[in-house]
Amino acid sequence: MTVTSFEANRARVIGIAADLFARNGYHGTGMAELGQAVGLGRGALYHYIGSKEAVLYAISKEQVDKMNSYAEELLDQELAPEELLRQMARGLLANIAEHRSEWAVFFREYTALTGERRDHVIAARERYESYWRQALDNGVRAGVLRQTPRLLVKGILGMLNYTYLWMEPDGELKPDEVADMFLDALIDGIRA
Amino acid sequence: MTVTSFEANRARVIGIAADLFARNGYHGTGMAELGQAVGLGRGALYHYIGSKEAVLYAISKEQVDKMNSYAEELLDQELAPEELLRQMARGLLANIAEHRSEWAVFFREYTALTGERRDHVIAARERYESYWRQALDNGVRAGVLRQTPRLLVKGILGMLNYTYLWMEPDGELKPDEVADMFLDALIDGIRA
Repeated sequence: MTVTSFEANRARVIGIAADLFARNGYHGTGMAELGQAVGLGRGALYHYIGSKEAVLYAISKEQVDKMNSYAEELLDQELAPEELLRQMARGLLANIAEHRSEWAVFFREYTALTGERRDHVIAARERYESYWRQALDNGVRAGVLRQTPRLLVKGILGMLNYTYLWMEPDGELKPDEVADMFLDALIDGIRA
Repeated sequence: MTVTSFEANRARVIGIAADLFARNGYHGTGMAELGQAVGLGRGALYHYIGSKEAVLYAISKEQVDKMNSYAEELLDQELAPEELLRQMARGLLANIAEHRSEWAVFFREYTALTGERRDHVIAARERYESYWRQALDNGVRAGVLRQTPRLLVKGILGMLNYTYLWMEPDGELKPDEVADMFLDALIDGIRA
């Protein structure tokens, strides 16, 4: 078995697990049920994923790690502050629209993780928040944005993250349009 | 047994259930565990709450019903549009800060409800969203706010609701201050 097919099988198991956990809860989904859904026996299932908690960990870390890498790339590009914020928002909403189950599981269930896995996921989440804070700070230093309370970042991320509940890749507004609408409201306000 | 003590016991059971469901998940919490946590045997527990799903329903509907009543009162008062939005945000964040477990369970677990219970909770949530839309529309009609896409309401509620993850009644900013900070950003934007 090549590394590639191992990775492909593992990714398939994790994707199906994300859908099951999102629908029935992490605690509400058994390994036997997951095995049945992916068509693998107990031994093969453990071969690909190790344990139920390891699956939850993989689901929880994968997208946030991607968003961190994406934010790092954008922060390196010395974009104009407003453009940087828009690209970060667009990147996040495009990812959420494509991976709604994974984000639902991440937001709802990461507290079921223990030890180093939990620490990693919390650290990744804090890192992502810090990149948004950096992006806002860039704008303040450039004189483009006003100084805002630190906690505003949590509001902005709430606005963006909460889309996992309703945003469809082919919905009324495309993910990019939702990102722009939110950023328009934040950057220029909603006053007439 | 008077109605009052029945209601008080029921409320105590529901409050403890909310903490357990928030910590271990709805599917991860058994009735035996709940009985033990509240110090009631199986018969007494069923006397107060009926079934596990009935507890989830009570947790999920109580705060959103309160927020709907509060929004209805505010909408009746003919407040200035900006004041109306601020009062709605403050009311919601004060409630979330006091009932974090209930909101966590509501947001994470309401999908476990079935039939009419599920329908009621979804309808209550949509009703609350419609009150926010009315409040924004009032502002547009009064010429105070610009016309914004319908879906912006979901972003505003994301910003506010997501505070259940981190807001403490005695945190760095009080719930009222968090509400004002978010409304400042939305109403006037963050541009320098």
